[in-house]
Amino acid sequence: MDSRVEDFTASIHFDRRLYRYDIEGSMAHAAMLAKQGVITPEEGESIVTGLRSILEDIERGDFEFRPEHEDIHMAVEAALVDRIGDAGEKLHTGRSRNDQVALDIRLFLRDEIAAAVKRLEKLMETLVQKAEEEIDTIMPGFTHLQKAQPVRLSHYLLAYREMFFRDRERFLSCLERVNVMPLGSAALAGTSIPIDRAFVAELLNFPRLSANSMDAVSDRDCAAEFMFAAALTMAHLSRFCEDLVIWTSDQFGFVEMADSFSTGSSLMPQKKNPDVAELVRGKTGRVYGNLVSLLTILKGLPMTYNRDLQEDKEALFDTVDTLSSSLEVFEGMVATLVFNRDRMLEEAAAGYTTATDLAEYLVTRGVPFRSAHHIVGRLVGYCIERNIDFSDLELNEIRRFYPPADESIFNCFSVEASPDRRTAVGGTARSAILQRIREIKEAGHE
Amino acid sequence: MDSRVEDFTASIHFDRRLYRYDIEGSMAHAAMLAKQGVITPEEGESIVTGLRSILEDIERGDFEFRPEHEDIHMAVEAALVDRIGDAGEKLHTGRSRNDQVALDIRLFLRDEIAAAVKRLEKLMETLVQKAEEEIDTIMPGFTHLQKAQPVRLSHYLLAYREMFFRDRERFLSCLERVNVMPLGSAALAGTSIPIDRAFVAELLNFPRLSANSMDAVSDRDCAAEFMFAAALTMAHLSRFCEDLVIWTSDQFGFVEMADSFSTGSSLMPQKKNPDVAELVRGKTGRVYGNLVSLLTILKGLPMTYNRDLQEDKEALFDTVDTLSSSLEVFEGMVATLVFNRDRMLEEAAAGYTTATDLAEYLVTRGVPFRSAHHIVGRLVGYCIERNIDFSDLELNEIRRFYPPADESIFNCFSVEASPDRRTAVGGTARSAILQRIREIKEAGHE
Amino acid sequence: MDSRVEDFTASIHFDRRLYRYDIEGSMAHAAMLAKQGVITPEEGESIVTGLRSILEDIERGDFEFRPEHEDIHMAVEAALVDRIGDAGEKLHTGRSRNDQVALDIRLFLRDEIAAAVKRLEKLMETLVQKAEEEIDTIMPGFTHLQKAQPVRLSHYLLAYREMFFRDRERFLSCLERVNVMPLGSAALAGTSIPIDRAFVAELLNFPRLSANSMDAVSDRDCAAEFMFAAALTMAHLSRFCEDLVIWTSDQFGFVEMADSFSTGSSLMPQKKNPDVAELVRGKTGRVYGNLVSLLTILKGLPMTYNRDLQEDKEALFDTVDTLSSSLEVFEGMVATLVFNRDRMLEEAAAGYTTATDLAEYLVTRGVPFRSAHHIVGRLVGYCIERNIDFSDLELNEIRRFYPPADESIFNCFSVEASPDRRTAVGGTARSAILQRIREIKEAGHE
Amino acid sequence: MDSRVEDFTASIHFDRRLYRYDIEGSMAHAAMLAKQGVITPEEGESIVTGLRSILEDIERGDFEFRPEHEDIHMAVEAALVDRIGDAGEKLHTGRSRNDQVALDIRLFLRDEIAAAVKRLEKLMETLVQKAEEEIDTIMPGFTHLQKAQPVRLSHYLLAYREMFFRDRERFLSCLERVNVMPLGSAALAGTSIPIDRAFVAELLNFPRLSANSMDAVSDRDCAAEFMFAAALTMAHLSRFCEDLVIWTSDQFGFVEMADSFSTGSSLMPQKKNPDVAELVRGKTGRVYGNLVSLLTILKGLPMTYNRDLQEDKEALFDTVDTLSSSLEVFEGMVATLVFNRDRMLEEAAAGYTTATDLAEYLVTRGVPFRSAHHIVGRLVGYCIERNIDFSDLELNEIRRFYPPADESIFNCFSVEASPDRRTAVGGTARSAILQRIREIKEAGHE
Repeated sequence: MDSRVEDFTASIHFDRRLYRYDIEGSMAHAAMLAKQGVITPEEGESIVTGLRSILEDIERGDFEFRPEHEDIHMAVEAALVDRIGDAGEKLHTGRSRNDQVALDIRLFLRDEIAAAVKRLEKLMETLVQKAEEEIDTIMPGFTHLQKAQPVRLSHYLLAYREMFFRDRERFLSCLERVNVMPLGSAALAGTSIPIDRAFVAELLNFPRLSANSMDAVSDRDCAAEFMFAAALTMAHLSRFCEDLVIWTSDQFGFVEMADSFSTGSSLMPQKKNPDVAELVRGKTGRVYGNLVSLLTILKGLPMTYNRDLQEDKEALFDTVDTLSSSLEVFEGMVATLVFNRDRMLEEAAAGYTTATDLAEYLVTRGVPFRSAHHIVGRLVGYCIERNIDFSDLELNEIRRFYPPADESIFNCFSVEASPDRRTAVGGTARSAILQRIREIKEAGHE
Repeated sequence: MDSRVEDFTASIHFDRRLYRYDIEGSMAHAAMLAKQGVITPEEGESIVTGLRSILEDIERGDFEFRPEHEDIHMAVEAALVDRIGDAGEKLHTGRSRNDQVALDIRLFLRDEIAAAVKRLEKLMETLVQKAEEEIDTIMPGFTHLQKAQPVRLSHYLLAYREMFFRDRERFLSCLERVNVMPLGSAALAGTSIPIDRAFVAELLNFPRLSANSMDAVSDRDCAAEFMFAAALTMAHLSRFCEDLVIWTSDQFGFVEMADSFSTGSSLMPQKKNPDVAELVRGKTGRVYGNLVSLLTILKGLPMTYNRDLQEDKEALFDTVDTLSSSLEVFEGMVATLVFNRDRMLEEAAAGYTTATDLAEYLVTRGVPFRSAHHIVGRLVGYCIERNIDFSDLELNEIRRFYPPADESIFNCFSVEASPDRRTAVGGTARSAILQRIREIKEAGHE
Repeated sequence: MDSRVEDFTASIHFDRRLYRYDIEGSMAHAAMLAKQGVITPEEGESIVTGLRSILEDIERGDFEFRPEHEDIHMAVEAALVDRIGDAGEKLHTGRSRNDQVALDIRLFLRDEIAAAVKRLEKLMETLVQKAEEEIDTIMPGFTHLQKAQPVRLSHYLLAYREMFFRDRERFLSCLERVNVMPLGSAALAGTSIPIDRAFVAELLNFPRLSANSMDAVSDRDCAAEFMFAAALTMAHLSRFCEDLVIWTSDQFGFVEMADSFSTGSSLMPQKKNPDVAELVRGKTGRVYGNLVSLLTILKGLPMTYNRDLQEDKEALFDTVDTLSSSLEVFEGMVATLVFNRDRMLEEAAAGYTTATDLAEYLVTRGVPFRSAHHIVGRLVGYCIERNIDFSDLELNEIRRFYPPADESIFNCFSVEASPDRRTAVGGTARSAILQRIREIKEAGHE
Repeated sequence: MDSRVEDFTASIHFDRRLYRYDIEGSMAHAAMLAKQGVITPEEGESIVTGLRSILEDIERGDFEFRPEHEDIHMAVEAALVDRIGDAGEKLHTGRSRNDQVALDIRLFLRDEIAAAVKRLEKLMETLVQKAEEEIDTIMPGFTHLQKAQPVRLSHYLLAYREMFFRDRERFLSCLERVNVMPLGSAALAGTSIPIDRAFVAELLNFPRLSANSMDAVSDRDCAAEFMFAAALTMAHLSRFCEDLVIWTSDQFGFVEMADSFSTGSSLMPQKKNPDVAELVRGKTGRVYGNLVSLLTILKGLPMTYNRDLQEDKEALFDTVDTLSSSLEVFEGMVATLVFNRDRMLEEAAAGYTTATDLAEYLVTRGVPFRSAHHIVGRLVGYCIERNIDFSDLELNEIRRFYPPADESIFNCFSVEASPDRRTAVGGTARSAILQRIREIKEAGHE
């Protein structure tokens, strides 16, 4: 083969990362072959021992991956034959690189899903803890980045917790489809060697066997699904990052990042750039791109295995790494955020943010919703004209717009009291938030 | 407002499609307001009656959607006020367009998931039926579009059935996250009106309430998840289409499409273009693009509702429609395919496709796997040189490569017998396939 | 054909949009056929007259597009035969729908590129005009959304002008590849009819002929290139929109949108939501998605024409429309922006934004760059500690950090003077900006 | 800083690749500073000498990149200060990492565009050479992967040459926008140091200066444009690959790949898998994904520099490498293809592929186009019914469908003669192809 072609088609420089899964799968396969009498017990033991020594060497950094071994499967098998001789040549009986790599990816994904779920749980815990700490912090809730109504900061933080919880659900849902054992599919058609697939599945802790060999060797759905779950997680992170970038601006000043999670300038020591938030936001593009890569690869691919599928792995590895580091660093950043509570309250208070409270008050007094809106709108206009705030109004002024008004109406204007009126499930009232936190804690991560 | 801006920001020309869900949601909301005493029973009834008459008018085509009504919510409310007067102005109490549209999308998606699942089930049934019909058809299994081993056509067809089953699982998994009731989140913070969200959920048949109002009004995860499930379904369809386009070529000649599912040429009446397969393959791009659209929209969006989110709907609608018509037409095309069994068998038989059988036979005779490969490879080389097929070999010729060979070795060369040696779960043996079909039928679509 | 298949494969509901180009191309084709003697002059005239009447009817809205006419080409031809009889049946001589649609798309794109270029020019003019108006406005320049240095608002506005200028260049560069005449490629191989392609090109004002018929009927590069140019334009618009959304927040308060370009709330009349900016930002996703659609369609498509290519049009049309309306509305919005000059200056002045000026001053006094940074950094630290601004410093305080300091150092602290020190080409000095505006005006849109 | 954050934000592990450009740019900057008197001539020389020694060390592999040096700029500067002391601290005068990295990317892209153009030219030359070799080879031209008309293989090969020529044009068009000198933009606002940007541009061979500093430090358009040009090139390669994968199937058998460009199987030595073609097709997804990554990053990014932009580089590098290796290996594969001329001719001849010739012949005899189609269609139907080919027809049989037929009609049926009737520019006639080859050779790569 042309040496450029050798380089072009080789995958050992990236699929070596799967070594542990490849060896683990081969051990189970060898054990099964021995149990079935396809190889002798001695051969089986020799193979397993040989594989274990290879694994140890790799983990110690004592194993040389050589480019001429195209891929991780060849590299391990060649080393095995080197170490144990003829028995090594029997390992590949009844399987093919097609089902072998399918197995490796699934073992890898199983671990990586567990890792992603764990990181998401850590982040959720941090958010709940921060929510508890900030239960008394009132901030302006935004729509269109315009102040709309006062909310509790806790409520905001828990909103992200809900997103990450869904992300976790998606990873776990993906796991169900990952957790299927493909070995025994061989090149595409299964094998005439008397194998016992269920035994292999048991050894490797898979609850299910793949049901069709042609599908099993060409299926990359679970990689695509993982990458989508990662993409949506990154979308959520990117939204949080966006908020934090805006909130750390001088103009907002809602939050300060810890020195350890921002970069400064020797020239302007007061400046703290939210680099971590920006990078996570930027890395969203990377994960989206990886998803597009794989979907493009799959489009219009004929059955069954085609070499195009080799291109799945780097995109998957990059997704795993990007997601993992982003979640880890992001969690650290969130844990060390210091919110400027006074500044938040100040901003929540200014700008007639309790107008909705007033309108809803009128509704409870019998004013139809649309009319209530109209009355409040005119009252706000009156205030703007005079450059005064709700709290500056006197009862007789209010009565020009709503004659039946009495003193109770002034309750509507308190920015601190406003959130606590929204007590229904999912609302921003202290009671609703505390109730939600209790639920979360009771449920654990179910 | 500038009239160009009015056009630019209006959504009535596409979100009118949600009318049924919008009205259904409003009816439940009104019933709840009445139950809670926020409006009188009479007002509640009047609203429901008014909404019902609007619904009927729309379904009959007697309702005029006017551009000045920006969106479906305004159009319905305006018509309601028109018809029932003041009570209509009370409908919007305790909610906002933000939670209203969130509800509409979820009601819509719930129906569309059910529809997609049904179409997938129909397609799976057709595949199983075809698989039963073609249980005796032997075809060459391909890797790299090169003939590899004989397989049963049924096995090939059921491979796609497995893919569509996973697609169905993904839609159902998405449904769990769709099936959450957001109404009561109001603009972003919940409401101080004494609403009963659980009652609304019950009326609308939602098992769960959204747990955070800020999340609920800005969450488009379920739309993204639906679009991903659709994208992967299209990827599977595109692979099947690719195969069919290749198989209908003169050179392959594996299958003929029904006249009703192909286009011809008045000039060349023998020509049948696989337009449906090509279009479905092409439409994969469309659905991928829609997914990218929504993910792009979500990237870096600050909390909570931003007008960018209005752009979710057209991409979603287009995805729903493309998926639906693609599945429907594709199923009809598959149901009417006529496979050229003789041609398939002929191609399966030529080209030493049973080489693997021979190698595995040697393995069972005690030859190590890699050596067996080597022996068979040399035997194939011998045949190629002489331009003969396996079946032309005599025992003494075979013995040059494998001295212990006896008559039983000739069994390996039968292309009809080959698949049936692959009996393990998921293999292409008749027994394994029939077992799988039984399982599928017993399980229904669970 | 199955009626669902008919619907599925039809394109008349969207490609009817190309009617003008289809007819224009047919007229040129007919004129050529007559000139070449393939049809008689009378037939040629009859065809052209018939086509013109069809064109007029369509433009008046008097033409019925019928679904059974699959596509615009068939619809026009059928109407022609209807109107002029046999001669109409000769129009399609020497061409095919494959080269016909290739021509239509190119004629369409040529117009749409001209339109996009015009809209970009209008927007650039508006930006230059705004830049002239705001030449005295000082704002804080941001990196990482943190205040970095004072710049002129004009400089900021002209930065976007540069982006849109590159966009314009890209569209014009695309035009060179669009402006190629494909007719005469027929189905894929050219035609044996004695056509004169150069004559058709001349009539239709194409400077070049396509050089390979197989390429010409399957080439959608120019559509992809247009869609990329549009995608990058939208990226630029999205960045501008992002800035505007942030700037219209209460916290920034840098700019106010005209009532005609924002949406309000009857409840909170002071609230102006930047819906247009948000929608344009959101529509970026749509245009990105369309690009991905087409690229996906093209991936792995065999030669030459395949029905997949029919899927190019809706994505292209949507891109054209989205780009066009976004540019138009965005331009109107920018033209009516009212900048809050005092607020911008105030923000530019606070926060040691002239630290760089001071460091550069020290450099010109012989302090090595890195040391200068260090000195200034310590001085800023000193100010922060005392909660004072640069302007509050006394000379002896400065000398603690930089002993040779004299009165001239105070010049560094003026936020109004700061920009004007950056006089090199491309800098934010008034002189550099005015020079750039002169250049732009002199060059026109070259 | 947290060590995880350090790792997360570091770019030295990938941007070290830019070392040559970073040093080259710094040399020019130092020379300019010296010329302007900002530093002394001795300092200037010392810096240049120091940088040269660093460059040499890196190229020899004797330079240690240390993780604590965040990025390539810091790594080089730190080494410089190490080697030459104080003067090294002056190098960064009047610039910032923001404009420095903008310069590095442009220098890098300039080289990579030249390399891509060269590879495309090599591929085009190979295609032209192959086209000359195969001028006598007749193959079936396909639409919908169905045989349509006979064409010359040369024509097919040159169709791809046209695509790659457009790709080359796009890279060169991109170069115009790359070839702009950004240094002097400093952090975002320009600098008050008396720099001479034109001098730097001259030293670095840039024809133009960037016109706006805020734009210059945040502009990644040229990277996006390069990535799009690469994406479309990959789309073209993927189409060619698709054809080759299909053509190397046993069923088509149109072409054989050289052993050095395909992979085999020890088991089935006759099998040649088109791995290179499959991998190139798969890598299309990778390049598409990279484009999506960058576009996503740019979406909604506020002005000016944000750390998100750091994420541009890995996607760009991967695109450069993937494109480069794909073009190189693909060219080698094409150069060594062996076409099966007999098989192609055989397939071109079968299946009434000259039906169009016959119809066009009738047209030249005065039969209206649509009627001619109808007549030929019926004749083909007659042949199919009798299972005969056109060449088996007798004149009286033909006259049943077209009474005026004479002996000259038999000329239409020759598959060898068919292509040569399509003589118009861009047609598949030998004369038209040879004419095109002459043009290409005369024009060189203009």
